Amino acid sequence: MVTRSTRGDDKRVERSKAKLLAETYRQLVKNGIGGVSIDEIARITGISKTTIYRHWPSRSALLIDACSRLGSVPELPDTGSLKGDVRVLLTQLADQLQTANWSSVYPSILDAAERDREVATLQAALHRAFMTPFEEVVQRAKAKGEISRLSSSGDWVAVLVGPFFYCRWFSKQKIDKGFINRVIDLIIREG
Amino acid sequence: MVTRSTRGDDKRVERSKAKLLAETYRQLVKNGIGGVSIDEIARITGISKTTIYRHWPSRSALLIDACSRLGSVPELPDTGSLKGDVRVLLTQLADQLQTANWSSVYPSILDAAERDREVATLQAALHRAFMTPFEEVVQRAKAKGEISRLSSSGDWVAVLVGPFFYCRWFSKQKIDKGFINRVIDLIIREG
Repeated sequence: MVTRSTRGDDKRVERSKAKLLAETYRQLVKNGIGGVSIDEIARITGISKTTIYRHWPSRSALLIDACSRLGSVPELPDTGSLKGDVRVLLTQLADQLQTANWSSVYPSILDAAERDREVATLQAALHRAFMTPFEEVVQRAKAKGEISRLSSSGDWVAVLVGPFFYCRWFSKQKIDKGFINRVIDLIIREG
Repeated sequence: MVTRSTRGDDKRVERSKAKLLAETYRQLVKNGIGGVSIDEIARITGISKTTIYRHWPSRSALLIDACSRLGSVPELPDTGSLKGDVRVLLTQLADQLQTANWSSVYPSILDAAERDREVATLQAALHRAFMTPFEEVVQRAKAKGEISRLSSSGDWVAVLVGPFFYCRWFSKQKIDKGFINRVIDLIIREG
């Protein structure tokens, strides 16, 4: 009986957490990280602030949980060449930058990361996860001798991905297939 | 007499505007654009909100004025080659990204620009001003035939500058002289 009642409690806790996370995520996508309000979450879900802080010790901890829903890490392509692999990854990235929820939320995370160490740690983790497939195709190309073994993977990722981030948030240039191909041809030369 | 009194009024108005702008700028640099509070500005300067809104019709209008102090446009270099010119500009940019006030404020502007059209217009104007010298050295290289006349200046600027913006705000990689040289050598090939 004790077990059953504990299970019932666990389910109630899970439901309450899910409801809170869903509302946090809604506010995050609508207003950015700075526009998430614990008062507003409590008001809309009808769950008390005391309960919210029982689930998450701080506002940052709740935000980190909500942010982890923002995007999924792309799969690792295997086309047989660095150019082909990068084309697959950059095409997915370009699409996400122009349509995904995280794309309009990300500047608010970068902004908060300038001042809040917990958010900075979250941003670093999100970033590493998103970039892992790029790192891996570059490492593979180095192992195969397609590019110099002495070159830095971090540099390769920065020159490949940087122009896309730049176009999305800074210059607001349109990112189309032509741009993807021009960047790839400029940066990865054959032979 | 009327003239003299009007001049006295003008001076008072100028002093009051300068005081408000200085306080706005202080909050902007400390907290980002989302952390600028008109209530707090009124409290600290001792100038009423009514007066603030007499000078600037909206919070965005005041922010735009304060943001225009954030950075100065770099001078146009003339070393005789695209590589040389780009090296001067990227060295300045790398230094600014790592030390200037605007560098920690910029993500808050990008964030606000996602939701506020006035801030989006401000961001576009700031961006164009900062990027003008890059555009101009690329245009000059095209005119001299150093790079293809058919290539897009916007693409060149994106691939040159994108990796630096990426390292400052996204990957948090250190930007040193070696990185500047590696990016330039990778992107601008001689002959």
